[in-house]
Amino acid sequence: MKAYAEMTREELAEEIAALKKEYRKFQNMELHLDMSRGKPCQEQLDLSMEMMDVLKSGSDLTCEDGTDCRNYGGLTGIEEARELLGDMMENNPKDIIIFGNSSLNVMYDTVARAFTHGVMGCTPWCKLEKVKFLCPVPGYDRHFAITEHFGIEMIPVPMTTTGPQMDLVEKLVAEDETIKGIWCVPKYSNPQGYSYSDETVRRFARLKPAARDFRIYWDNAYGMHHLYDDKQDYLIEILAECKRAGNPDLVYKFASTSKITFPGSGIAALATSPNNMDDFCNTLKFQTIGHDKVNQLRHVRFFGDIHGMVEHMRKHADILRPKFETVENTLKEELEGLGIGTWTCPLGGYFIHFESLPNCAKAIVARAKKAGMIMTKAGATWPYGKDPYDTSIRIAPTYPSASDIALAAKLFALCVKLVSAEKLLEEKKQESAQAQEA
Amino acid sequence: MKAYAEMTREELAEEIAALKKEYRKFQNMELHLDMSRGKPCQEQLDLSMEMMDVLKSGSDLTCEDGTDCRNYGGLTGIEEARELLGDMMENNPKDIIIFGNSSLNVMYDTVARAFTHGVMGCTPWCKLEKVKFLCPVPGYDRHFAITEHFGIEMIPVPMTTTGPQMDLVEKLVAEDETIKGIWCVPKYSNPQGYSYSDETVRRFARLKPAARDFRIYWDNAYGMHHLYDDKQDYLIEILAECKRAGNPDLVYKFASTSKITFPGSGIAALATSPNNMDDFCNTLKFQTIGHDKVNQLRHVRFFGDIHGMVEHMRKHADILRPKFETVENTLKEELEGLGIGTWTCPLGGYFIHFESLPNCAKAIVARAKKAGMIMTKAGATWPYGKDPYDTSIRIAPTYPSASDIALAAKLFALCVKLVSAEKLLEEKKQESAQAQEA
Repeated sequence: MKAYAEMTREELAEEIAALKKEYRKFQNMELHLDMSRGKPCQEQLDLSMEMMDVLKSGSDLTCEDGTDCRNYGGLTGIEEARELLGDMMENNPKDIIIFGNSSLNVMYDTVARAFTHGVMGCTPWCKLEKVKFLCPVPGYDRHFAITEHFGIEMIPVPMTTTGPQMDLVEKLVAEDETIKGIWCVPKYSNPQGYSYSDETVRRFARLKPAARDFRIYWDNAYGMHHLYDDKQDYLIEILAECKRAGNPDLVYKFASTSKITFPGSGIAALATSPNNMDDFCNTLKFQTIGHDKVNQLRHVRFFGDIHGMVEHMRKHADILRPKFETVENTLKEELEGLGIGTWTCPLGGYFIHFESLPNCAKAIVARAKKAGMIMTKAGATWPYGKDPYDTSIRIAPTYPSASDIALAAKLFALCVKLVSAEKLLEEKKQESAQAQEA
Repeated sequence: MKAYAEMTREELAEEIAALKKEYRKFQNMELHLDMSRGKPCQEQLDLSMEMMDVLKSGSDLTCEDGTDCRNYGGLTGIEEARELLGDMMENNPKDIIIFGNSSLNVMYDTVARAFTHGVMGCTPWCKLEKVKFLCPVPGYDRHFAITEHFGIEMIPVPMTTTGPQMDLVEKLVAEDETIKGIWCVPKYSNPQGYSYSDETVRRFARLKPAARDFRIYWDNAYGMHHLYDDKQDYLIEILAECKRAGNPDLVYKFASTSKITFPGSGIAALATSPNNMDDFCNTLKFQTIGHDKVNQLRHVRFFGDIHGMVEHMRKHADILRPKFETVENTLKEELEGLGIGTWTCPLGGYFIHFESLPNCAKAIVARAKKAGMIMTKAGATWPYGKDPYDTSIRIAPTYPSASDIALAAKLFALCVKLVSAEKLLEEKKQESAQAQEA
């Protein structure tokens, strides 16, 4: 088929009529599809049900070092869990703190702590006139929501296929002392599924921030989340790289098992330098006596070791891979050559990113909604929910069932075509009106 | 035996010699006793082991309302858990938020939130010159540690057998707009085991604080923790009383199952007014997607209902009652009539409070330590860890085994006698020296 931009007004009008007919068919199906959030599907949750059997009433809930997991204590987590998560995060267990069920909560608390008590002896942010964060865009809405909640000014930095534009990042953090952090999802990024290149990670580790309390907020949410056995992105380990670069305290690295076992009942972790660890624990010791050690032990005994976790992740991949491929193939079949959008084909993570024609994303998401499909709000991938180009749409293919996903992808492609065709026709009409006036 | 104060110098010297001999016997035993923290003992932990069996790989982890507990979501907790904790806290389930494993963490976050975002639209505390809290003394060291960590000035208010001195509380909160809160453990208080009288609770509900963002931090940690079936303290429900008094937003009420199931792996809860709930959720929604629902469901299925929990608490009481009675009987046998201290005999909770002669508490705790017994640091029951009278000692009889507890109590009484006798002898020597000078 011809690219839409090359169609005449008559051809576009004809195309729109046909698309509308098809759209009405979808509307008549009274669908309830949800591609809005990065939520595992039921089949994925079922993969971890045997975790419910590893601790029984007759089990010994004692750690190797003698800690009774049932009682109080253990601020940084049980050693076995630090070791497992250390293997998962490619960090030394001693550099790891195990938290509760949510890495988002750890990130929030990290910003809150900097706000109330400052980072390693620096002025608490609540005492400063202005605090800013760099936000690679498109990015993760919940990151942006935390910084917005604390009144932190967010500066968008464009993403590339190799990570954020590092020239800009380097320049901004070196110039501006009020820039205190940058949100990163370095592997299979949310929402594009890009992974930072070796050069990008090396440049991150060598940043020369003006602010002593600048930290990289490195949310490695998808470190284990490959879709393929044979094609996998590789990410340089940032803590080690920072240490090599003489910047050991530059990074807070977050991860969790939320998308490995159960999203609401996993364990979260932080990996960071000894100095940062001390800083965390100086507050953490007032906040809690310790996190849920029984659940830590449950995870350790379920996986056995990192190999067990890797094998487990292959089962997730087997469920997710066909869903991603269905969306990608449908987009290719339906949209290739039309010149009305591009999309990513990530090798892992939870999202596909679609880039529409300018000023079309909101309309596409609204169209999908009217036919019974909820998508991530257009604009959500930008700070303050405002995408200045109105082009960024996050597609979350994990939650719908295998049978629904084909339908969902078709409906999405249809909405893209319909909105784009209408937009182009509108533009052509305006152009010819202007030509007549002239 | 004669009261120590009535002994002559010779009698005291003789007594000290005898006590030292006995003390050396204890030292030779090379004891490792721990009466420092309110920690359940192993037998108590064993009571909840069957909770490990209620969720199995074949279980349906779906709530009555269809929520899959394994997935994301459920900011305020699953309905079944709100109902169970509602029954436990004597509150309407709709007034309850279920959190993670630690009510201390909820309290910390509540203060942190007031600090960063303010209470219900009031100025965030980080923007104020001065913030103060009232601290009933003796009280709970971890409460005081939170407020100290945030630089909040703590004003001690004396405890009585019926609760804090309410004349003083009423006067201070009415006069001083910088007073933003008061820490309360209203039932079986930490460390005395006193419960607030009906009049005290009614007066709390009718406080007229100068500060609009003043709240009562009502830590009902021991609401279910009776030691006796037939003798139990009763506490008026504060939320309902505040509502009746026209002060619905005056209180945050905290509780948890930490000392009901497992201290590190229980569930915590907040009960408060709808306005306060909204205020909490406005921050909570940025902090997390939801707490551990699987663990909530595990608790609900383990107890069945509040009757199940009450029966469970009787088993705890059966383990703890003899320990409390051993300590109380030993103190009576060893110290009654000597005039060197008083102690509480609570009907529930986790502590016995001992009040020594002035300027003796630190020395007693130090003596105990030198004979191999760790007690709560003297002074810990006061803000900043500073007891101006040096008389307050918290005794935690729950953790040592039944056989150790008798020994521990005897050793403690011995240390009290030894330190008191030495103190009195010293005083008598000084008095007679002064008499000779005069």
